[in-house]
Amino acid sequence: MNYLTYLPVWDKLDKIQQNKLLSSAVVRSIHKGKMLHNGSADCTGLILVLSGQLRTFATSEDGREITLYRLFERDICLFSASCIMNSIQFDITVTAEKDTEFLLIPSDIYKEIMEISAPLANYTSEIMASRFSDVMWLVEQVMWKSFDKRLADFLLNEANIEGTNTLKITHEAIGNHLGNPREVVTRMLKYFTNEGLVSLSRGTIEIKNKDGLAKITMR
Amino acid sequence: MNYLTYLPVWDKLDKIQQNKLLSSAVVRSIHKGKMLHNGSADCTGLILVLSGQLRTFATSEDGREITLYRLFERDICLFSASCIMNSIQFDITVTAEKDTEFLLIPSDIYKEIMEISAPLANYTSEIMASRFSDVMWLVEQVMWKSFDKRLADFLLNEANIEGTNTLKITHEAIGNHLGNPREVVTRMLKYFTNEGLVSLSRGTIEIKNKDGLAKITMR
Repeated sequence: MNYLTYLPVWDKLDKIQQNKLLSSAVVRSIHKGKMLHNGSADCTGLILVLSGQLRTFATSEDGREITLYRLFERDICLFSASCIMNSIQFDITVTAEKDTEFLLIPSDIYKEIMEISAPLANYTSEIMASRFSDVMWLVEQVMWKSFDKRLADFLLNEANIEGTNTLKITHEAIGNHLGNPREVVTRMLKYFTNEGLVSLSRGTIEIKNKDGLAKITMR
Repeated sequence: MNYLTYLPVWDKLDKIQQNKLLSSAVVRSIHKGKMLHNGSADCTGLILVLSGQLRTFATSEDGREITLYRLFERDICLFSASCIMNSIQFDITVTAEKDTEFLLIPSDIYKEIMEISAPLANYTSEIMASRFSDVMWLVEQVMWKSFDKRLADFLLNEANIEGTNTLKITHEAIGNHLGNPREVVTRMLKYFTNEGLVSLSRGTIEIKNKDGLAKITMR
């Protein structure tokens, strides 16, 4: 199976370019919870997700985190290969949220082809624009949405991704996702409990009233 | 004068591409305070600043603003031509902070050339990566820097841009830049006044102690 055909522009590359990618890309796997790319580390390479789920986040100097976006099957992580572009002046960290298999494309090979292939260069722009849109959404969330909306949004999104109303996640982990202290998360979850929207037990949040949460996100 | 040579990749375009740009780009000017591009409006086109200063910002549903980045001479605004890429799923507004002259490049012409020219496609990626880096910096500011640091940072940056320690700017305008209510700005400026860092008069903020402000940004 040639996973490189997952690239929508694969057919627009010439034989030499295709062969360069084929001979350099490697399939790798990583266990849930492990770190795949560390912001300040070297250029890991482009990551093309084959199965599983990755989380990318930014980290503050004192260790706080905020989730930027998630990567699912066929998604590409560009910023783990930030050396392909001079103007990428920020660091992200990538960890596996589930056991994940991925194709790793060496940065130098990708860069070499991108520099002469308009289709690959434009595809790269589109990926970046898409991630940029995710982060702009986040800016709006952080700047302008009150925390109850953001937490309700997060819980509904999690339930959707996991396909269950029983979420196994700690308050601290949610805080890391949303860039808020654990205490703020716990307090709002207790408020949601009192409203009959969720119920809490150790390490688990059970969603009791999806419509109610959805109403909060639309306030 | 062919302002299109401001594009670093001008020499890498062929004659046909150069002529298409030459025959379609037009010089325009706009007065200080006027709006050049309105987020939800149509695709204005690529803006190449010739002189003056533009401000780009995002707006919340209830009218609050946050400055994303400024554009100076030779800077390009890509997101005023968001129709060149499918994945740009957010809106920005662009206004003139000073009387500004700019070259307006029609979106469809730029897109047409970008699709076949690897140099122009890669240049476009670099611009986007650079703006992305600006916004990631902003996310860190908003998420993790306390407001005193952000305000001190803003005042020093303004003084630097304007080349004067006497800033003619209202508290409301600063609030719009930083995404905070006017009251928060006024309160912190009074704190700075008490610390001997600035002095206030109607419509003016005078910086009295640059080193002191710089110390706050490094707290």
